[in-house]
Amino acid sequence: MTSEAPIRAYRRLSVEERRRQLLEAALSLFAHRAPEEISLDDVAEAAGVSRPLVYRYFPGGKQQLYEAALRSAAQELEHCFAEPPQGPLTERLGRALDRYLAFVDQHDAGFSALLQGGSVVETSRTTAIVDGVRRAAAEHILDHLAARDPGPRLRMTVRMWITAVEAASLIWLDEDKQPPLDELRDSLVEQFVAVLVSTAGRDPQTEHVVRAAIALESADGAAGTLARRVLPILGDAAHLL
Amino acid sequence: MTSEAPIRAYRRLSVEERRRQLLEAALSLFAHRAPEEISLDDVAEAAGVSRPLVYRYFPGGKQQLYEAALRSAAQELEHCFAEPPQGPLTERLGRALDRYLAFVDQHDAGFSALLQGGSVVETSRTTAIVDGVRRAAAEHILDHLAARDPGPRLRMTVRMWITAVEAASLIWLDEDKQPPLDELRDSLVEQFVAVLVSTAGRDPQTEHVVRAAIALESADGAAGTLARRVLPILGDAAHLL
Repeated sequence: MTSEAPIRAYRRLSVEERRRQLLEAALSLFAHRAPEEISLDDVAEAAGVSRPLVYRYFPGGKQQLYEAALRSAAQELEHCFAEPPQGPLTERLGRALDRYLAFVDQHDAGFSALLQGGSVVETSRTTAIVDGVRRAAAEHILDHLAARDPGPRLRMTVRMWITAVEAASLIWLDEDKQPPLDELRDSLVEQFVAVLVSTAGRDPQTEHVVRAAIALESADGAAGTLARRVLPILGDAAHLL
Repeated sequence: MTSEAPIRAYRRLSVEERRRQLLEAALSLFAHRAPEEISLDDVAEAAGVSRPLVYRYFPGGKQQLYEAALRSAAQELEHCFAEPPQGPLTERLGRALDRYLAFVDQHDAGFSALLQGGSVVETSRTTAIVDGVRRAAAEHILDHLAARDPGPRLRMTVRMWITAVEAASLIWLDEDKQPPLDELRDSLVEQFVAVLVSTAGRDPQTEHVVRAAIALESADGAAGTLARRVLPILGDAAHLL
């Protein structure tokens, strides 16, 4: 529909470039409509190419295209949590969440359709792709925590937080993208600190991780802000000690 | 297959009793095998009745029986979080979680199949039933927090925790039901306290709720235990204040 489309259609692209172009067109369509509402004609039109060309690259049709697009989105999502292992943990996590939330923002309806399932094209393979992203995110975070051979309590805490972040993303999309992204990011980082500290109370390995992480945090960072905000509220809790 | 089955088949049951008997038989089958692996013959055999009788009660066949069983399970799950509004919040939450986790323990494979979706008989209606349970659980918890007209930050915190509890239940089933249920329950209660306190740092309504809740907690309860365990770890955090 765009005036650029016919021009793009006649550009010579390598096989890999063409494939990527089609996946990008598919992803941008999946971003705004549920997969079952999208036809290969729509993808061809969005990419400014013919329908037979789409079939040449994805002979398995829509299911194959959907899975390839999902895999490409999954790779992008997995990269979100790749972050150099330097500096305070809350800063690393904040940058990872910035990338993750930008992805959620950009792919909104497609992201919901993907995670909430129940889609016509959902199969055990697509479920496995989504689970792979969750696992990769958990591994990245455990790497940042620098826990050698992380035990079940630490792993469970990280995986619970990842699920909670997904839930927050879906709620955020559902509530017209409120609160603003930076506020959402900060509150997710703070929740991570909170649940990690909570688990540290009953797991020596997590306690070790928390102590090491605290040493790297600074007063003007996320952990400092959280500590100063929360301390006055806990002033009423002296009877618990 | 059990010796009791033929006897039960000839007992006179009211329509409602018979219906409940069939649902219970279905639920106990769904508890150990994925819905798509179960036939109406299996349900008839488990209930000790004839296949035509199952069809008389569920003329829509397996899909109808599955949805009815799911609805019955959903009602049971929703009741888990109904709890008199008295006493410390962590005790109320602990009792609700005991009931919820007992349900997870009892229905293990069926519970996973239900929540992880991807099942052949999954439809938007069954997804809506599961979402209804989540919403009901959130409403119960918000009632216990005694927040009038709960705002988006408090609601999001509660819904994120509910999703995290679901994730923990699935991980627990996946890891051969470790840790023991009472330890899992305590850690889930502690995570709730932790995320609520974290949100209180940036939301006046949640702060109000937390202050009111703390006043009802006692030193030998969950909040006291958490506070005493966590405080020494945070001793290293003086540079953040």
